[in-house]
Amino acid sequence: MNANITVRMLQRLPLYLSYMKALSMDGAVHISATALAEALGLNDVQVRKDLAAISEGGKPKIGYAAEPLIRRLEMVLGYDNQIEAVLAGAGNLGHALMAYQGFSEYGLNIAAGFDVDEKAIGTQINGKMIYPFRMLNDTCRSMNIRIGILTVPAKEAQAVCDAFVASGIKAIWNFAPIRLKVPAGVIVQNEPMAASLAILSRHCAGTAHS
Amino acid sequence: MNANITVRMLQRLPLYLSYMKALSMDGAVHISATALAEALGLNDVQVRKDLAAISEGGKPKIGYAAEPLIRRLEMVLGYDNQIEAVLAGAGNLGHALMAYQGFSEYGLNIAAGFDVDEKAIGTQINGKMIYPFRMLNDTCRSMNIRIGILTVPAKEAQAVCDAFVASGIKAIWNFAPIRLKVPAGVIVQNEPMAASLAILSRHCAGTAHS
Repeated sequence: MNANITVRMLQRLPLYLSYMKALSMDGAVHISATALAEALGLNDVQVRKDLAAISEGGKPKIGYAAEPLIRRLEMVLGYDNQIEAVLAGAGNLGHALMAYQGFSEYGLNIAAGFDVDEKAIGTQINGKMIYPFRMLNDTCRSMNIRIGILTVPAKEAQAVCDAFVASGIKAIWNFAPIRLKVPAGVIVQNEPMAASLAILSRHCAGTAHS
Repeated sequence: MNANITVRMLQRLPLYLSYMKALSMDGAVHISATALAEALGLNDVQVRKDLAAISEGGKPKIGYAAEPLIRRLEMVLGYDNQIEAVLAGAGNLGHALMAYQGFSEYGLNIAAGFDVDEKAIGTQINGKMIYPFRMLNDTCRSMNIRIGILTVPAKEAQAVCDAFVASGIKAIWNFAPIRLKVPAGVIVQNEPMAASLAILSRHCAGTAHS
């Protein structure tokens, strides 16, 4: 098990986890892959495969024991151990993300923010300090930071991305509407909120095609 | 033009827009589809097709005039006219989204928030009131709201989604880690932040496969 956890699979696992947590709170002790698939509107062969890849397998007619499977999902998703991140660009969106207290559920802690704006530098959001951007490298190296959250304007995004990479960051969560160029070994996860909003708006205007 | 704007295309248009705005601020007056494709790391046939679908076309050897194309992109993306949304679930994430002042750039205004928590009801975030959840339907109907932002826990998400639909909402921006079931004519745009975080974390742990 655990040999071949693909990115597509990682996109489904949080769905299983949240559904199973809710079931478990309702007192359920076991769940079958079929019931899980049906509840989530997914293909049941797919769900069965996913669960087999991360766990010991379910028991015939009983299914999976809920608690061990929840623990296993949390482990595979990395929610069980805290990972430290930094954020660059403490504007509106960066501020909102630093103030958001829900990331701890997912094992993410934003250790510090960085900005070039003198007014932002030295302030705190949610108890986390905003440092001058020139301190990025030293901070990331000394804290062994591997995740960088990028919330600067599109125009500055590639330069900040390069600075992240130079600081040893291996995974970039990109909220800027731009395709970043990164060397091999570094991944970018895009959060295309502008595109999402455009899709929603156009649907309401009645003109979007799928 | 404008006949066939697909969802995939809507995901690329914000990239063109942000890049062209930056160029335009730098004083560029024209841009070719080839240069745009190269800068964004996209296929140039694709970019040419996209631009042809939304505009009058570029001039040979000169390319597209920047300003009219920017206006056109903003129009197609719906950024030029404001659309009103409501948000359900004024917890951590909902609070952060309501406090975020950057949505206006994309033509989105969160008119009001809804929650069942007595402590949240009656408070304001960024000048927007939190109302009791039972007022959702009346508010949406009287303001002709078409977009609903869903930031409740996964367990309550389907029930809130159903209430959105019953209130005339046609497009749901879903931040809950759950696949929502909606009737025909209603679209759901998922924002799978939990999955994004899992992908980033696992990459840093050195175990993710693509």
